[in-house]
Amino acid sequence: MIEYVFGIDVGGTTIKAGLFAVDGTLLEKWEIPTNTAEDGRWILPDIAQSLKAKQKERNIQPSEIKGAGIGVPGPVLEDGTVDHCVNLGWGRKCVPEELTKLIGFPVKAANDANVAALGEVWKGSGRGFSDVLLVTIGTGIGGGLILDGHIVTGVHGSGAEIGHICVNPHETVACSCGNYGCLEQYTSATAILRITKKRLEEGKEHSILQGYENLSTKDVIDAAKNGDALALDVLDHMAKTLGRALANCCALTDVALMIIGGGVSKAGLFLLEPIQKYYRMYAFHTQKNTCFRLAELGNDAGIYGAACLMI
Amino acid sequence: MIEYVFGIDVGGTTIKAGLFAVDGTLLEKWEIPTNTAEDGRWILPDIAQSLKAKQKERNIQPSEIKGAGIGVPGPVLEDGTVDHCVNLGWGRKCVPEELTKLIGFPVKAANDANVAALGEVWKGSGRGFSDVLLVTIGTGIGGGLILDGHIVTGVHGSGAEIGHICVNPHETVACSCGNYGCLEQYTSATAILRITKKRLEEGKEHSILQGYENLSTKDVIDAAKNGDALALDVLDHMAKTLGRALANCCALTDVALMIIGGGVSKAGLFLLEPIQKYYRMYAFHTQKNTCFRLAELGNDAGIYGAACLMI
Repeated sequence: MIEYVFGIDVGGTTIKAGLFAVDGTLLEKWEIPTNTAEDGRWILPDIAQSLKAKQKERNIQPSEIKGAGIGVPGPVLEDGTVDHCVNLGWGRKCVPEELTKLIGFPVKAANDANVAALGEVWKGSGRGFSDVLLVTIGTGIGGGLILDGHIVTGVHGSGAEIGHICVNPHETVACSCGNYGCLEQYTSATAILRITKKRLEEGKEHSILQGYENLSTKDVIDAAKNGDALALDVLDHMAKTLGRALANCCALTDVALMIIGGGVSKAGLFLLEPIQKYYRMYAFHTQKNTCFRLAELGNDAGIYGAACLMI
Repeated sequence: MIEYVFGIDVGGTTIKAGLFAVDGTLLEKWEIPTNTAEDGRWILPDIAQSLKAKQKERNIQPSEIKGAGIGVPGPVLEDGTVDHCVNLGWGRKCVPEELTKLIGFPVKAANDANVAALGEVWKGSGRGFSDVLLVTIGTGIGGGLILDGHIVTGVHGSGAEIGHICVNPHETVACSCGNYGCLEQYTSATAILRITKKRLEEGKEHSILQGYENLSTKDVIDAAKNGDALALDVLDHMAKTLGRALANCCALTDVALMIIGGGVSKAGLFLLEPIQKYYRMYAFHTQKNTCFRLAELGNDAGIYGAACLMI
């Protein structure tokens, strides 16, 4: 009798794992460190060892396990092949094949942001929707696109790379991807902080953030919530840039729901509402009322979505 | 024995129809005028009458007909309901239901640009591809998105409305859709002509187009082919704007193939190559080598795609 599924979310520093019942109930979650030494060659063996230990601890028989889903931070092709995963040190690698050899049950792999989107659709704020774009606002801008209930993987494994939509062709500073003027250069947590610091350094505007040591993106958001004009203006620009980009994404995909997640989304409605306001300003007339919601699963979206790959 | 399918492409002035064998062979095509009088109430009856006449002429029995597909110039929901089709005078209308009542066999309806994309994938330059974006450059900019072999209809029936991606938030002139700075304001046949005329009127640049009466978009393209600096620059700007927008579309969908169609695509490689050059300049690094092709089916893409809806 098949009763269990594992969901794995591989990050650059931590691997999150979850044991799920096949009905989608999260039974237990845990973490192990990501060992990126030797081009990340120990990552899959470490995962296999951790899953085997969990099986033993709970006395789960191999026949009771349906398989494991795994989210990986990089382009993942339809068959689970990863093509260069910089954060993990991986080159080309067929993750399901290698991991299955190590643990003896079926494995499916997909890109981490796409997997998080699937998680939100399955058990988070996207429940009941089949056409959803998840945007994660963190160090960068991530995206996961679900159409008709399925991940849009893309032929190069890089569907929904919305952080790298060009929103400013006149930019002279390069994005981490090598292009210029990418969405994440203006709307990520990193960007909010960089832009705020720059304006503070220019010293032309009064702000309660003047003189802060170790300024964080959260400080900027808190200052805006307290009415600081500079912080409010930085976030207004960010919301306008993101809202317009999402309107453009919707012109192409006409999804039913936009989910805003990632660390910065902890700002809640304070940030969601201006993003939605600008979205409406720029959206095609039939798409002005597209739903906007905050992500619900937080850091667990990845393990939920990974488990969902196998269910 | 089922042997036949009809494919119908409804335009603002002409309705194109095709009789297909179920293997996809186009047996015959014809046209009837689009009667938009009385809010377009005669359009579906006219189509029904034309199909019945064809059946009679060829002595086709009802049992031999699998059905008809129909492409409509406006948003079409998954169930074939049209929600305001300005060019035809239609309000809300369930096309398959109404047309089936009139002709007695099954009908499926979809947006005309999406249907054309399906046609190109089925029998045109997209054969063998399952993830394709078709861009039609004509009076406006149309788009049809096929993912995993299926049309991306969108929850409001307006998937792939790429003509209305905002590419210039600083624009002060409104697009026909009511928004400002839409892609089609800079890259359609209409836009090429408008921008050329404006620069000619400013009179600052020498051009062989000075003094042309009834200047057409084709004149501009021909002048560019003959080395006219002004015309070349207008088309270079157009290709840059379109190439960048398509790179952004690919960041989201990561399709395998971009097909360029519509009247302006008759300019051939002369236009395709610069669009592709700029696409590569702006594309995400994994997506730089996405294929570009010219559409092959021309005005027949719509009837092919419509027939494919039923096959």
